Amino acid sequence: MLREADIIKKLQHATTNVPSGVYGIGDDAAFFPLSNTVSYVISKDLLVEDTHFRLRYFDPESLSHKALHVNLSDLAAMGATPHFVLLGLSIPQHLTQDWIERFLEEFVSECQKLGIYLIGGDTTASQQSLFISVTVIGQAQNLHLKFRDGAKSGDLLCIAGHLGEAGGGLIALEREISGFEDLKARALRPEALIQEGIWFAERPEVTAMIDISDGLYIDLSRLCQASHVGAIVELNTLQPSKVLQEGCQEMNLDPLECIFTGGEDYALLMTIGAEDYPTVARDFGNTFGYPLISIGSIAKDKDVILTQGGIPTSFSYTPFSHFKELG
Amino acid sequence: MLREADIIKKLQHATTNVPSGVYGIGDDAAFFPLSNTVSYVISKDLLVEDTHFRLRYFDPESLSHKALHVNLSDLAAMGATPHFVLLGLSIPQHLTQDWIERFLEEFVSECQKLGIYLIGGDTTASQQSLFISVTVIGQAQNLHLKFRDGAKSGDLLCIAGHLGEAGGGLIALEREISGFEDLKARALRPEALIQEGIWFAERPEVTAMIDISDGLYIDLSRLCQASHVGAIVELNTLQPSKVLQEGCQEMNLDPLECIFTGGEDYALLMTIGAEDYPTVARDFGNTFGYPLISIGSIAKDKDVILTQGGIPTSFSYTPFSHFKELG
Repeated sequence: MLREADIIKKLQHATTNVPSGVYGIGDDAAFFPLSNTVSYVISKDLLVEDTHFRLRYFDPESLSHKALHVNLSDLAAMGATPHFVLLGLSIPQHLTQDWIERFLEEFVSECQKLGIYLIGGDTTASQQSLFISVTVIGQAQNLHLKFRDGAKSGDLLCIAGHLGEAGGGLIALEREISGFEDLKARALRPEALIQEGIWFAERPEVTAMIDISDGLYIDLSRLCQASHVGAIVELNTLQPSKVLQEGCQEMNLDPLECIFTGGEDYALLMTIGAEDYPTVARDFGNTFGYPLISIGSIAKDKDVILTQGGIPTSFSYTPFSHFKELG
Repeated sequence: MLREADIIKKLQHATTNVPSGVYGIGDDAAFFPLSNTVSYVISKDLLVEDTHFRLRYFDPESLSHKALHVNLSDLAAMGATPHFVLLGLSIPQHLTQDWIERFLEEFVSECQKLGIYLIGGDTTASQQSLFISVTVIGQAQNLHLKFRDGAKSGDLLCIAGHLGEAGGGLIALEREISGFEDLKARALRPEALIQEGIWFAERPEVTAMIDISDGLYIDLSRLCQASHVGAIVELNTLQPSKVLQEGCQEMNLDPLECIFTGGEDYALLMTIGAEDYPTVARDFGNTFGYPLISIGSIAKDKDVILTQGGIPTSFSYTPFSHFKELG
């Protein structure tokens, strides 16, 4: 079977004739013009039963919430404000009316809470698995749109949001380990950093941005590849939270492995000019009440290098690919 | 399980707070503003293995073509010109690299042929079934947008396109009957009436429009329900084509049943003021080289009544719902 990366490459090739001002496959979302200065931004993410979620541990509300926020996170990474959503559902026979109603009610209520209009969709039967296909549409000033390809040598690598907790929670859920409710909640009900995305969009100091959905290592590599640069990440800056540390100790996991390869964080990774970072970090902390953490810097050499206390170190990891290495 | 109609009703309720100028769930496609006079029109249709298609008789090129045209037909029914498309695929392990490459190549080449830009998408693994989610985006002048709810008592009911042939072909495919290649081609490679849709959009005489994807009976009922009217359909106007007639004779099918309930036609059904019909039909014939057929008229009474030679008649049918009554 073709890997996702191969398919994207094939489709990217097909989008090279897209006129300028319209972006092709390969970033978190695509965009198309609204006016000379404003674009619509569109993201479409699929959630497939037993590939991205299991009904064993997702109640309908959590799954509905997650399906929406996974897409909203893509818009956040582009710096767009979400406006419209379309919901596609392929529903297997075994799901009850009550289950579907609860799923829809949560979806509708979350949209209303966020001021997003549900404008369309499609529902259909499925033979075995539940498939969820959400399309979200937002807006951004063209000058505010953030891409993956703007990182420059010397920029600082920065993180907004939690890393590793969702990955730890997913392992607890997959292995049916009781407790660890805080970690599980990160996996079950991620919150897209919508306001943070909009805030970063208005900061020209942010040179590139991506959301971390497949673990820090993979998404950092994507950003580096798009920008034709490398990165140096200092492990001592990636302090696991108390809840992650405790959870990992009890489950005999490496917190750094959760952070690098856990996936499903929906944090934002961005690059900021080194001279601008202090101001941006101060303003961010004042606005959101939690820190914007610098975890390293962008380098010319196209590798991702890890250091610990400034000394190059090696770290073996298994890349995140949903359930393949779990269960 | 909730039926699709119930789910749409629930979601429609949720979209009542959508500001005017943005349309909610329930028509062929939704729309959102591009300017004061132009809207983007968006449709999202799911195709699910063994619900909408079987890999036994779809080669990758036909399936790819169909996934695109099913969505384009929704835009055609709104009178929109397609511009952008996003492709979502959930791919089961058993599909070969060659199969996926052929699917993608056809998709890309058909988009290029039609001048549609492939701007994004998502690919992911699936445990069992192939799942295709396409989102197409087009444009239309606001004044040209066609809806289901504009039919008025006295309007003529008109059809552009073939009815029943795809339904007959689907039965041949499902029952593994050899031959009937013309009928099968209608089911396997439907062509959305894109140019016709755009042409009708520019005709103010067209008061309502819908595409026929689930059979004439269901889609006519939808149009009537949206417009709060009924309809009288004269069966003698629904002359089956020679290929349909011959196929039905050999397979022991009723051609009228194929026409009313066969599904997958992707023809266009519209209503036109009776006094305007002769001009529109003449212009249509001159432009497209095939006739715009009037099959009846809109009535105040909210039923769909069938007549044969002007005399009310009853006709028992099984509504189309993909494979439920086949196989």
